[in-house]
Amino acid sequence: MKKVLIDVDTGIDDALALSYAVHSPELEILGVTTTFGNITVEEATRNTLQILELLGASQIPVFPGASRPLFRELKEKAKLFHGENGLGNIQLPPPRTAARREKASVYMIEQARLHPGEVTIITVGSLTNLATAIMAEPEMTKLVKRVIIMGGAVTVPGNRTPVAEANICADPEAADLVFRSGIPITVVGLDVTMQTLLTREHLETWRELGTDVSRSFAEMCQFYMDAYAKVGNVRGCGLHDPLAVGVAIDPSFVRTSPMYIAVDTSGGLSDARTIADRRSQPEFPPNADVCLEVDHAKFLAHFLQRVF
Amino acid sequence: MKKVLIDVDTGIDDALALSYAVHSPELEILGVTTTFGNITVEEATRNTLQILELLGASQIPVFPGASRPLFRELKEKAKLFHGENGLGNIQLPPPRTAARREKASVYMIEQARLHPGEVTIITVGSLTNLATAIMAEPEMTKLVKRVIIMGGAVTVPGNRTPVAEANICADPEAADLVFRSGIPITVVGLDVTMQTLLTREHLETWRELGTDVSRSFAEMCQFYMDAYAKVGNVRGCGLHDPLAVGVAIDPSFVRTSPMYIAVDTSGGLSDARTIADRRSQPEFPPNADVCLEVDHAKFLAHFLQRVF
Repeated sequence: MKKVLIDVDTGIDDALALSYAVHSPELEILGVTTTFGNITVEEATRNTLQILELLGASQIPVFPGASRPLFRELKEKAKLFHGENGLGNIQLPPPRTAARREKASVYMIEQARLHPGEVTIITVGSLTNLATAIMAEPEMTKLVKRVIIMGGAVTVPGNRTPVAEANICADPEAADLVFRSGIPITVVGLDVTMQTLLTREHLETWRELGTDVSRSFAEMCQFYMDAYAKVGNVRGCGLHDPLAVGVAIDPSFVRTSPMYIAVDTSGGLSDARTIADRRSQPEFPPNADVCLEVDHAKFLAHFLQRVF
Repeated sequence: MKKVLIDVDTGIDDALALSYAVHSPELEILGVTTTFGNITVEEATRNTLQILELLGASQIPVFPGASRPLFRELKEKAKLFHGENGLGNIQLPPPRTAARREKASVYMIEQARLHPGEVTIITVGSLTNLATAIMAEPEMTKLVKRVIIMGGAVTVPGNRTPVAEANICADPEAADLVFRSGIPITVVGLDVTMQTLLTREHLETWRELGTDVSRSFAEMCQFYMDAYAKVGNVRGCGLHDPLAVGVAIDPSFVRTSPMYIAVDTSGGLSDARTIADRRSQPEFPPNADVCLEVDHAKFLAHFLQRVF
C-alpha cells in the first residue's frame, strides 16, 4: 500500500477525489489536510469531515491548514463552480467528528519523518501547506517520496486567467517555493485534466445506483456541470482532482516529461502561470515530471469502478 | 503591386528578407526603415544601405529610426547569431549612398497618409518605430492596411528567453502598444518561422551560382548556421524575416487564427511573452491574426526562386 497524504480545498472534485482514494485499496490514507482555494479553509475542513462521514471513512484524520496565501490577500472563492458551501449547495448533516488540533503542515512533517521516503503527498488545492512544511523543515524535500500536484497549465490555456490555473493562482509564491525546492514533483495540470470528462449520463447511473453516497455525488456534480455549461463546456466536467489520485494509484494512466517549471509571481498578465523551458536546448535542469498525455478511457473506467 | 514599408534591424535574415522583397514584383517597396535589435540602429542603417547597394537597389530610400527601446535600456546585440557587424562579419564596401534625414516613424506616417488603406508595414525588428508612429498619429491604426510582424512566440517556446522572442524582447512596451492599438496585425512568430529551414545544401547552390550577391549571402548564412549549430540546431537556420515578406507577397503560405494577444511587460519571468487567450471561451476579442501553420515547401520554393 502506498502511504498518502491528501491536501484538499473540498470542493466538488475534491470530494470525488476523496471518494476515489477512500475506495482504493492501493492507498493508505495517513490523513487529509485542508487549505483555502475553492472555498475558505474553515469550509474546506467542514466539507472534508462531511464527505468522509458520508463515505463512512471518518476514521481518517483531518488536519486544518492555511487560511490564506503566504504573501497575498485571500482571493474570492469559486462560488460559480462549487456553490456557496463548496459542495454544489447540497445539504449534508453537520459533521459529528472534529478536525485534529495539529496543523496541516506540522502533520505533513511528522508523517514524512515517521515514514522517510515512503509518503506521497497529493495536493489538489493551493500549495500553501506544503510550502509551509518545506520552509519549516527543508529536509521534507528528501523525506517525501513524491508530490503529485493537481495544478498548473504548462502547454494549454489556464482556467482562472487566460494563462493560469486556479490552484497555482490561489498562492503563486507557495507554488514557486515548492517548484524551487527540489522535492520530486509530478504535475497533473490542465494539460491532462482537461482531457478527462465526466458526463451527465454517468450521473444518471449514479442516481440509479440509489445509495446516499451516489445520489449526493450526482447532485453535486450536476451543479458542477451546470457551471461548466455556463462557461461553454456543455459536454460535462473535467475530473481534475480525481486524476491526481489516479496518478498516485497507477502512474501508467499518464505519460510524463521531465521539465523545468517556474511559476510567474510578477503580479502581471502572466501571474501564476507555470512556465516551462521547452526550448530544444533548455537552459535549466528539469525540476518536475509534467503529465502531457492521459489514457482517458483507462483512467475513467478505473475511476467509475472505484468511486462508490 | 502591394505598397510596403519594411522595418529592419539588418541582421542576416533581414538581409535575406530584403533580397527576397527587392526581387518580388508583387511588392512596391516605398522605403526601408531601420531600428535596433540584432544590432544598433546605426549598424542597421549602414548594413541596410550596403545590402541594398549589393542588390543594385540603392534607389530604395532608407530612413533611420529608433536607437533604443521606449522605456528601457538597450539590450546587448545578438553577436552570436549575426556577428560583430550584424552581417556575419562578411566585408562589404562602405555604403556610397546615405540614409535620408527624415526619421523612420515620420516617413511611416507620411506614406500612410499619402496612400490611405494601401500600405502594409512589415516589421522584422523591434516595434519601436511603429509604436512611435502610432503614438504620434493615432489615425495610423486606420490609415495602414495591415502590419505583418515577425515577432512573438504564441504557442511555442521563445528564443531570447524560455518564453519570449527576440523582437518582442527588444522593446516589450512598444510591442504592447502596437497590439493594443487596434491596427490590423498578422503575427509571423516562431510558431511558423521555426518550421522553415534553410540548409547548408542551399548555400552550396548559392556558392555555385557564383554571383557577388549569392556568394556574399552564402557566406553570411554560413555564419548564421554555425551559430545555430552552437545552440544545437544542426540542420540549418530558420527563415524568420523572409517569411514575413513571404506572407506579404502571398498570404496563402500560412494559415492564421484570430486571437487576442497581450504582451507581458512585467519585467519578470514572462517578460516579453506574447500571451494569447486561447481558452475555449476567450474573455477578450481578437486583436491579431496569428500564423499557426506554414506550407513550408511552397514558401521555401518561392523564396529560393526569388532570392537572387
